[in-house]
Amino acid sequence: MDWGLIDRYAKSLIKEAGHKIRLSFFDQIHIDSKSNANDLVTNIDKEIEQFFIKQIQTSFPGHKILGEEGFGDEINSLNGTIWIVDPIDGTMNFVHQKRNFAISLGIYQDGVGILGYIYDVIRDELYSAKKGEGAYVNDERLPKLEEDSIQEAIIGINARWVAPNRYIDHEKLLGLIQHCRGTRSYGSAALELAYVSSGKLSAYVSMRLSPWDIAGGKVIAQEVGAVATNLEGEPPSLLGPEPFIVAREGLHHELLTKYIVQKR
Amino acid sequence: MDWGLIDRYAKSLIKEAGHKIRLSFFDQIHIDSKSNANDLVTNIDKEIEQFFIKQIQTSFPGHKILGEEGFGDEINSLNGTIWIVDPIDGTMNFVHQKRNFAISLGIYQDGVGILGYIYDVIRDELYSAKKGEGAYVNDERLPKLEEDSIQEAIIGINARWVAPNRYIDHEKLLGLIQHCRGTRSYGSAALELAYVSSGKLSAYVSMRLSPWDIAGGKVIAQEVGAVATNLEGEPPSLLGPEPFIVAREGLHHELLTKYIVQKR
Repeated sequence: MDWGLIDRYAKSLIKEAGHKIRLSFFDQIHIDSKSNANDLVTNIDKEIEQFFIKQIQTSFPGHKILGEEGFGDEINSLNGTIWIVDPIDGTMNFVHQKRNFAISLGIYQDGVGILGYIYDVIRDELYSAKKGEGAYVNDERLPKLEEDSIQEAIIGINARWVAPNRYIDHEKLLGLIQHCRGTRSYGSAALELAYVSSGKLSAYVSMRLSPWDIAGGKVIAQEVGAVATNLEGEPPSLLGPEPFIVAREGLHHELLTKYIVQKR
Repeated sequence: MDWGLIDRYAKSLIKEAGHKIRLSFFDQIHIDSKSNANDLVTNIDKEIEQFFIKQIQTSFPGHKILGEEGFGDEINSLNGTIWIVDPIDGTMNFVHQKRNFAISLGIYQDGVGILGYIYDVIRDELYSAKKGEGAYVNDERLPKLEEDSIQEAIIGINARWVAPNRYIDHEKLLGLIQHCRGTRSYGSAALELAYVSSGKLSAYVSMRLSPWDIAGGKVIAQEVGAVATNLEGEPPSLLGPEPFIVAREGLHHELLTKYIVQKR
């Protein structure tokens, strides 16, 4: 497999998709909801996913595609070469803010993440990584992350997980809110993964993410030494929704042992 | 008073300060803490405030200046012409992220906000307003805000206020987290005010903000029809730290009556 070729192809596909998204602001956007009233989807999410699928199927007919909007293949195992794509991660931001959303793409070979991309469309910032060859934002190499204490950490976490919920002991999480330097919430898992990988956040936690939210960012995170797992400390399955945590290594351990305690 | 002249002067001062801040990334930044370990200040916050003060004192010797870093005047009343400046709002973001911070400036005449500015230094976005003449982001006029329901609202609120705290009944706030469309937290009150004024957030709430956090944004918010008050529904005093809420009008009322209930 010529991964260098696939890398160049993927980058040009993402840039073209970003261009289409920016142009879409000049047209009327149609908004629907999916699983609940706040799970938004637009015609642009769908059109961009179909653009990805058509291009990939034409150029790499043997590859499989898993997409958020469901136009790709049904994926029950990670065997083979799989493109995992979220055409617009942070659709609510796309609709309300016209910024703070991203295209996310991960390319996996038999379950191993080889290429990862997160494209902040409005800032024109492309985070990318190739397994074993480091991570970049545009042409600039991202340095390996240094260790960080809870006291100096800014944690990406949404206020909803601090409220009582069925996934974790929210009382333990209250301790984290008090002990860490600060919390932020941007409303795009992919961007928050990019922020952890580029040192803008020390960790990011969510109780329910889908494969397309994390597939691209996981490859990037690994290249800078961040650890991305479920709450058991195991790699995400990438086959369904799961709780997710990504953090610098020592912090990842401390968060999982002291603050983020799963309900049984 | 020639407010048109002051407006042009203030804008050029802010742009020059922003330029100095961007250049500072090429030098070593010295970080200290103030009231607590997470209340950060850098040599750049101080230098930029001193730059503002020196320029304003030279050009407008009769005006008073209230600055976050304390180099300005001691202000016990809002009589006269007062420049209220935060050289870097979101210092923690400035230090950790090198983005997502702003210069905030409000110019008040006998307690009335006449000019307001929030400058997102890295995006090069200047939000500005002159009382009675509308609000702008760069050269683009910001439209009046439309009403918004809780169900469709994205609320700017930090997770710390959802934890038990001495200001408000956090249980009531949990209802808001469940009922609203989503929450965000950016770590800069000034930027969050700019986001409310430009429709990217429907409301922003914090339990403790200082005059320099809100002085600029309050003028901008008013020009687009947002309401900015303390939790009693009264205008902020601008003389000391206070709880603060800014929202579209109907939403402001609903938030204060149903969800954000002050402890007595």
